Amino acid sequence: MRMVDIIHKKRNGQTLSTAEWDYVIQAYTADQLPDYQMAALLMAIYFQEINGSETADLTLAMAKSGRMLDLSQIEGIKVDKHSTGGVADTTTLILAPLVAAAGVPVAKMSGRGLGFTGGTIDKLESIPGFRTGLTEAEFIHTVKAHGIAVMGQTADIAPADGKIYALRDVTATIESIPLIASSIMSKKIAAGADRILLDVKVGSGAFMQNLDDAIRLAKEMVRIGRLVGRQTKAVITSMDQPLGMAVGNSLEVIEAIEVLRGGHTGSALYHVCLTLGSHLLTMANVATDEVTARQRLAESLADGSALRKFEEFVIAQGGNGEVVRDFSLLPQPRARVTVQATKAGVIQAISTADIGLCATLLGAGREHKGQQIDLAAGLMMACRIGDKVEVGQPLAELFAANSDNFAEVSSRLLGAISIGPKPVQTGPLVYGLVDENGYQAK
Amino acid sequence: MRMVDIIHKKRNGQTLSTAEWDYVIQAYTADQLPDYQMAALLMAIYFQEINGSETADLTLAMAKSGRMLDLSQIEGIKVDKHSTGGVADTTTLILAPLVAAAGVPVAKMSGRGLGFTGGTIDKLESIPGFRTGLTEAEFIHTVKAHGIAVMGQTADIAPADGKIYALRDVTATIESIPLIASSIMSKKIAAGADRILLDVKVGSGAFMQNLDDAIRLAKEMVRIGRLVGRQTKAVITSMDQPLGMAVGNSLEVIEAIEVLRGGHTGSALYHVCLTLGSHLLTMANVATDEVTARQRLAESLADGSALRKFEEFVIAQGGNGEVVRDFSLLPQPRARVTVQATKAGVIQAISTADIGLCATLLGAGREHKGQQIDLAAGLMMACRIGDKVEVGQPLAELFAANSDNFAEVSSRLLGAISIGPKPVQTGPLVYGLVDENGYQAK
Repeated sequence: MRMVDIIHKKRNGQTLSTAEWDYVIQAYTADQLPDYQMAALLMAIYFQEINGSETADLTLAMAKSGRMLDLSQIEGIKVDKHSTGGVADTTTLILAPLVAAAGVPVAKMSGRGLGFTGGTIDKLESIPGFRTGLTEAEFIHTVKAHGIAVMGQTADIAPADGKIYALRDVTATIESIPLIASSIMSKKIAAGADRILLDVKVGSGAFMQNLDDAIRLAKEMVRIGRLVGRQTKAVITSMDQPLGMAVGNSLEVIEAIEVLRGGHTGSALYHVCLTLGSHLLTMANVATDEVTARQRLAESLADGSALRKFEEFVIAQGGNGEVVRDFSLLPQPRARVTVQATKAGVIQAISTADIGLCATLLGAGREHKGQQIDLAAGLMMACRIGDKVEVGQPLAELFAANSDNFAEVSSRLLGAISIGPKPVQTGPLVYGLVDENGYQAK
Repeated sequence: MRMVDIIHKKRNGQTLSTAEWDYVIQAYTADQLPDYQMAALLMAIYFQEINGSETADLTLAMAKSGRMLDLSQIEGIKVDKHSTGGVADTTTLILAPLVAAAGVPVAKMSGRGLGFTGGTIDKLESIPGFRTGLTEAEFIHTVKAHGIAVMGQTADIAPADGKIYALRDVTATIESIPLIASSIMSKKIAAGADRILLDVKVGSGAFMQNLDDAIRLAKEMVRIGRLVGRQTKAVITSMDQPLGMAVGNSLEVIEAIEVLRGGHTGSALYHVCLTLGSHLLTMANVATDEVTARQRLAESLADGSALRKFEEFVIAQGGNGEVVRDFSLLPQPRARVTVQATKAGVIQAISTADIGLCATLLGAGREHKGQQIDLAAGLMMACRIGDKVEVGQPLAELFAANSDNFAEVSSRLLGAISIGPKPVQTGPLVYGLVDENGYQAK
């Protein structure tokens, strides 16, 4: 097999065989293929795309390029949830204990990642003592003992994906739906879940900017799941404004605990968590339908059982459980400032990615791998689309180690929030569901 | 300027600026851009193509990536001829002395190249003593003294093109008309000619397999020439069968000398040489029209002046001029065999690239850079399309250092010549001309 012939085939729009995908991924992972040939293949894929079975072949080859977790020792159906990413996307911190409390085993690998804030792993590490660097044995033991564990994704999970992603980043080949789908799914498959629930975000703070692309990506991932024998569903949710109000690491932990305490019941964050959670319960065969599931989850938030599971989870991974009662145990920002509206009117739109960028500029997120982040930094939004605001009314509060960036970030933040005279009808929070039957709007 | 942004722009079909092309080519030549980014850009160009002014920008940037020859010391209009390559394309060996004898200064750089046989440089080096490794000063001096010189292309001529071509070869990005056009033209421009005549081959032994592609390539090169201020014309000629009868290095020298002696006047090779030569004369303002030019060239073949110019040229570059009278001075093959027709009928078609491959297998051509070739090896065709043949009639004679490959090559050669019952109407030898007014069929 010659790589140049494989590139040629794909360039001409032909289908590559399973053996060809295996060859490409194995050889590239083993440093036996030069980056320039992989870059040419990736650009050819960008233009010619790859069909469903090719995407499944690619995904499985990437999943198998490293360690494949075996969760069979854990009883029950293991369901993994993955979000395509957004701003104030605090769902994992709430969902994991919420569904664990309802009897769904949660054995979750999470990334540190790049983005507006840290990943789930960073957020959890803002809790004093919390350890995410578990061995596979500790991980499985913890899930068996407590029904829940979250560990950091190790470099030996789908290493081909990591290497290819880094190359895509510098060769303008990120924006390919089959490549995005296979990247996400390869890690989920290697992480061992039986069933996969995806939260595909769409909007101004999401990677997918329009609903059609989000549905296409969701369908692609659901199809991969079916082809590799892991049932997969995708909920399409809005990222037209930050999901929660907190954008930052320890700030999001606080907001998550507040929801777990039974608060924010009218919020978008609460609603999305219950929607995702109810799918997780039905996919794990712990509830028969979504209405029952949703009721059960709402009850466990109201009666404190979800919060207790969170405390148990924190303690099991070495963290200080007192955090659920005392937020002063979390890292504290040294500087804060309120950003006030400079004109009156109705919030028309929020450029959500810019809000995320503000958090990054305050120190909450990484711009490159390995960068240290400030776990206390970030911002708390004080407004949502459709809100009426007066001049001088707080729109957000900024938190950082010092006030150096406050002027710049305040001005950026004001630029990201458009205020106008007209009343605004907000779009749906949950657009719909993609499962093996296709897309159904909610 | 960031390469990833440039790739992104081109991937999205946007136009790159002159400054962006300059940056890409300068940085890549200076090893400041990784191959993987260039590979991604090349594949994006394959799909999105580049417009006329971009192709001119790219060409000029590649031409300027190394030494630019200055031929201004040589009086007269310097016209360079370039063929896109084929089998038995012996034109340069004939044309150079032919037009020099008519008063057109010939200052030609030629490549060794890869291909079915060696390049012009290899062919000339089959003449004992012939030196092609001239310095620029020797080169210009020789043209001034004798009206003709041919030197090997040095590595400092358009080095960006060499580096990019090598990358295209392993990333399946050869078949891009703007990239082919800019590769050819960058070398011609760096080599210093005032005007450029292109011989674009089309057919079973050419890179361009159909007339439309050949015309597109020709138009692209003519447009580049206009945009960079070097008048360019292109003749489209057939490569549906070997142009001459000799396919090999010293074999082609012999055939060229035979034409220069006034022989083969009815042949395709003769006809193409006169067509190209008459354009060279008119482009150099040495003749007012092509009919006059053609007549003058025919006369200088008939009266021996072209042959005398060839002898002078050989001697001026250190070669043994006696070769024009005594072919035994050329390298001699040790083994030869005749390939005979195994069925009777009419030659329907010749798979010309396969004939070229036979010559390579006999040792006449290189498969990879730097490879030693056998200057005496090759084959002499004994038939042309439309010829009637009997069983046992010779179709070709093979020449090599030994008979090891004769069985394989004979069988390949028989496979490349299709014989059938029907009479055959051959296509045109010269399809037409592309100049600044577009394509005109002949």
